[in-house]
Amino acid sequence: MTYRVEFVERTGIERLTSARGLARYRMPLAGNENHVGVMYMGAFTVLAEATAAIPGISILDTARFYPIIKDISVVFHKMSKTDVFAEFQLDEPALDGLLADLERKGSAGYLAEFPMLDAGGVTVATGKVTVKLLSHGWTKA
Amino acid sequence: MTYRVEFVERTGIERLTSARGLARYRMPLAGNENHVGVMYMGAFTVLAEATAAIPGISILDTARFYPIIKDISVVFHKMSKTDVFAEFQLDEPALDGLLADLERKGSAGYLAEFPMLDAGGVTVATGKVTVKLLSHGWTKA
Repeated sequence: MTYRVEFVERTGIERLTSARGLARYRMPLAGNENHVGVMYMGAFTVLAEATAAIPGISILDTARFYPIIKDISVVFHKMSKTDVFAEFQLDEPALDGLLADLERKGSAGYLAEFPMLDAGGVTVATGKVTVKLLSHGWTKA
Repeated sequence: MTYRVEFVERTGIERLTSARGLARYRMPLAGNENHVGVMYMGAFTVLAEATAAIPGISILDTARFYPIIKDISVVFHKMSKTDVFAEFQLDEPALDGLLADLERKGSAGYLAEFPMLDAGGVTVATGKVTVKLLSHGWTKA
């Protein structure tokens, strides 16, 4: 179930739960500061992608399917001088729909939109990510 | 004129020109691969940010002004199995306008939109970044 991406590991991002359909992550400020000492943009995009993708990945038979990102957008509201937290969940009907789409047409997708919060609970950015789930070697029946 | 951001340096991004108002960058694939061996999303966002911001930064008196990113979006068209290249330019009237805004109201901004190309010249993604230029300790006159 786990994909290793060096780029992501270099940020020190921490997954805070392993529940099915649920992503909850912490991005550390340390090592991810920008030129003015607050959280760097790129750390937000990594946090947004992980938070968006993991609920879908959590149900994937990774021998058959894999995730990709179709688009990502982050809007910044405030600078963050602390670690940043994000959470996104797909409920059971949504998960069932994704699995059904994968079986039926070899692909599925969803839009994840969620706030990213500093340690004080203030929304510092908003993430919006389109996640696609695709099949290894899919051929139409 | 140069801001150092560790996160950016870890990607190995290379600036290909130092002309005023012009950004031209190369993001290496090596070290920036994702779980399926192509360029990772986060490397695109770093490339997009640098390409968008540098034309504005190139004219900044950094003792007085600094850049921030207001929002960033990357749309993916194809996976890239090579290094990725991007270019964005602000012309002289645009640069003059930014400097005038900074003097008049302490802030300025622009939208950068540009393709990101693989080594074969194929557009693999589109970047769209809103850059703001702000003043250190600005107070209205």
